Amino acid sequence: MNFRIIAYIVGWVCNFQAAFMLLPFFTALIYHEREFSSFLIAMAVCLVIGIPLTLKKPKNKVFYTKDGCVAVALSWVALCVFGALPFVVSGYIPHPVDALFETVSGFTTTGSSILTDVEVLPHCVLIWRSFTHWIGGMGVLVFLLSLLPLTGGYHMNLMKAESPGPSVSKLVPKVQSTAKILYTIYFGMTLAQIVLLLIGKVPLFDTLCITFGTAGTGGFGIVNDSIGSYSTYCQVVTTIFMILFGVNFSVYYLILTKKFRQAFKYEEVRYYFGIIIASILIITFNTAHLFRNVLVAFQQVAFQVGSIITTTGFSSTDFNQWPALSKTVLVLLMFVGACAGSTGGGIKVSRILILCKAAKKEFQLYLHPNAVKKIKMDSKIISHEILRSTNIYISVYLLIFAASVLLIAIDNFDLITNFTAVAATLNNIGPGFEIAGPMGNFSSFSYLSKSVLIFDMLAGRLEIFPLLLLFFKDTWKRF
Amino acid sequence: MNFRIIAYIVGWVCNFQAAFMLLPFFTALIYHEREFSSFLIAMAVCLVIGIPLTLKKPKNKVFYTKDGCVAVALSWVALCVFGALPFVVSGYIPHPVDALFETVSGFTTTGSSILTDVEVLPHCVLIWRSFTHWIGGMGVLVFLLSLLPLTGGYHMNLMKAESPGPSVSKLVPKVQSTAKILYTIYFGMTLAQIVLLLIGKVPLFDTLCITFGTAGTGGFGIVNDSIGSYSTYCQVVTTIFMILFGVNFSVYYLILTKKFRQAFKYEEVRYYFGIIIASILIITFNTAHLFRNVLVAFQQVAFQVGSIITTTGFSSTDFNQWPALSKTVLVLLMFVGACAGSTGGGIKVSRILILCKAAKKEFQLYLHPNAVKKIKMDSKIISHEILRSTNIYISVYLLIFAASVLLIAIDNFDLITNFTAVAATLNNIGPGFEIAGPMGNFSSFSYLSKSVLIFDMLAGRLEIFPLLLLFFKDTWKRF
Repeated sequence: MNFRIIAYIVGWVCNFQAAFMLLPFFTALIYHEREFSSFLIAMAVCLVIGIPLTLKKPKNKVFYTKDGCVAVALSWVALCVFGALPFVVSGYIPHPVDALFETVSGFTTTGSSILTDVEVLPHCVLIWRSFTHWIGGMGVLVFLLSLLPLTGGYHMNLMKAESPGPSVSKLVPKVQSTAKILYTIYFGMTLAQIVLLLIGKVPLFDTLCITFGTAGTGGFGIVNDSIGSYSTYCQVVTTIFMILFGVNFSVYYLILTKKFRQAFKYEEVRYYFGIIIASILIITFNTAHLFRNVLVAFQQVAFQVGSIITTTGFSSTDFNQWPALSKTVLVLLMFVGACAGSTGGGIKVSRILILCKAAKKEFQLYLHPNAVKKIKMDSKIISHEILRSTNIYISVYLLIFAASVLLIAIDNFDLITNFTAVAATLNNIGPGFEIAGPMGNFSSFSYLSKSVLIFDMLAGRLEIFPLLLLFFKDTWKRF
Repeated sequence: MNFRIIAYIVGWVCNFQAAFMLLPFFTALIYHEREFSSFLIAMAVCLVIGIPLTLKKPKNKVFYTKDGCVAVALSWVALCVFGALPFVVSGYIPHPVDALFETVSGFTTTGSSILTDVEVLPHCVLIWRSFTHWIGGMGVLVFLLSLLPLTGGYHMNLMKAESPGPSVSKLVPKVQSTAKILYTIYFGMTLAQIVLLLIGKVPLFDTLCITFGTAGTGGFGIVNDSIGSYSTYCQVVTTIFMILFGVNFSVYYLILTKKFRQAFKYEEVRYYFGIIIASILIITFNTAHLFRNVLVAFQQVAFQVGSIITTTGFSSTDFNQWPALSKTVLVLLMFVGACAGSTGGGIKVSRILILCKAAKKEFQLYLHPNAVKKIKMDSKIISHEILRSTNIYISVYLLIFAASVLLIAIDNFDLITNFTAVAATLNNIGPGFEIAGPMGNFSSFSYLSKSVLIFDMLAGRLEIFPLLLLFFKDTWKRF
């Protein structure tokens, strides 16, 4: 284990965290809010820890996958712990577990909240909540990689551990350039949404918060009914951008480099859109009678489907009241999730595709025992490694799911609340059903349950392995 | 595809079916019930189809895994279709889908019922329902193998397709002897339970029905409150035998051959008992206040836990009223299921063990990238084949689960009813929660939903692959 490099990376994350807090800090100054001091204190703490750790570049460059995972996991823990400071210091979320829940929910782009009334929060706190989504969406270490002049082989191991999906596609041979391209696309799309919302006369502050939540597929709202009270135009723009941010960013790179044919043929993305369209049609048909007319139904359903499959978690209507079929489709979408290499969470469309293809191959093996078949995606053979790790991901995912549901059942809420609360946090969506539904929140859970859900959110965002590694004794051996 | 052998096997299954029906036939005669004629008609139909198919032994002995799967799947379909005849002919379950549901539920040892009042049924119909459990429990083809002088290499392929679990353990080199040993143990244990229940002064007829339900881990009751109205002694005996019938039968063979040490070390069985004990303790602690005293709680909880994990599905109390934690434990047990090589259903303890071990190995690979590790169970290396098929089993299982929940959601019952109804049928348990709970039944589902659940019960009993193969066009090629 290369403790030196890990400390160096975590140190830089702390420094960046201080920089990130400049946004809420200046927001506080603009709106004359006295909470600017809370952010000042948090920034000071970050720098006091970060600067000493980053003063000297580490010399030993040996850096294994394991070290990459641990560095990413610890970075995220640091990010969340220091990110929670302003909530506690300002007194808006006094209890540390609550504050941590809210921050983890922010950075992991979950969007579940323990707050019963967000409208009493000052602007600086609101924008900090939303901004954490934007930072967490593409990943803080990808950000670090795109800016820091790091050398050595550890780029890839960091990226692998932080990026969602069964495998990382380097867009260009150099990892640093890949990170830069990803952030450029991310930034560009964020800007596009901001402009479109401003054109629709959404106030600048609201525009920023909504866009951060959309881009990171996070879902914190700044009014109590999430997006329900905004104009149809605003909702439509948000729907489109939610779905776009759930697309594998490789596609955008292909489009930018004018490889349209390749971009259009991208299997995962085609299935992603297929699932979205099918879901919208089924639910519109199933809920049409609940809306003024079919068009309104279509718009509302598209919003909800986009919000759930991309694991954003904004809501514009109370889908808890929908018929069972529609609710079931939404629950299934919660697990499907967005594309790999997007800012969305969930199991990911590509993983589900890989599993289906493996199953199909197994049947063909029954029928033609001697045929040698390989599983392919986008005409590339899926390696045995990826198939194995996908299978294991699913198994561990199910085990964590079962253990979490069991632990939060101690609170004695109904089974749907428990089941969907875990689904909503482990998949980084936000709202579940019933008590944890779009019009409810997570405040009534016990601190034990909140801790379990905090773990689930982090496990979901980091795709389980990096986080779980922290709990193995062998991880901490120096050897 | 060797159609000739498949027809021969299905033919024998029909003949056996006619023989099985002698039990309800004679029961009808003893109790002077006029429904004896329904069974007579059904027996005639079975023989009219069975005898011509079995007149000549097939010459072509080429028989692949695929043929084995198809033979087993078709045998089960024939078994269920002809088994449903008496219900329709007698008029007690007039609608064919309902009758098929009840019969499939019987043979697959599920125990879900569409009947709202079983107490109005005549003795012959009641004993036929329960007897289907006993036949389906150990498997009709295993029975066939133990009796028929079949030659050629197709024994193993039939046994593989019908026996539950990730791999079949041949107790002795000859498949036919293995089948004989299995049925001898099965018969012996059945007899033991009958004797013990008779000692407890349970009437002979009730004894037979309860024992058939226990031995096959089926769960049809012959009174409306399942086992609730029987004596504590009867419930305790049933609890013990449910748990014993969920044990891998290899263990009993080891005990019979005096290999006690090996029997005691059997990993799957140790975990099976570990899970049972842990579940009983958790739920007793959680529900103690609902019962007169802790002893009563313990006895009732042990019954329910044994009933659910072995997928029997008898109930002695309404666990729908239990706290969320207890209900969650029960739901999780529904998925775990019993041991491989037992009469129980579910995913099976050994599969879950294999997945956990594979996950552990993956973590060790992160920590020690160059270590070569093999997954072992009972000190034997688990082959890549078994690991792959276990993984694929889980994936396909989840896909079928999701599709089923979606389809029955059209009925617009609550999500827990839908979710647990599918869990209860796909795992061959019987009762779910809410509308499908222990005090409810499946009568209110639509025929579409019932058909889906019929498919799930068969898929669960035959462990998916044999049944699904029927739906592939390539399966039916002669080549």
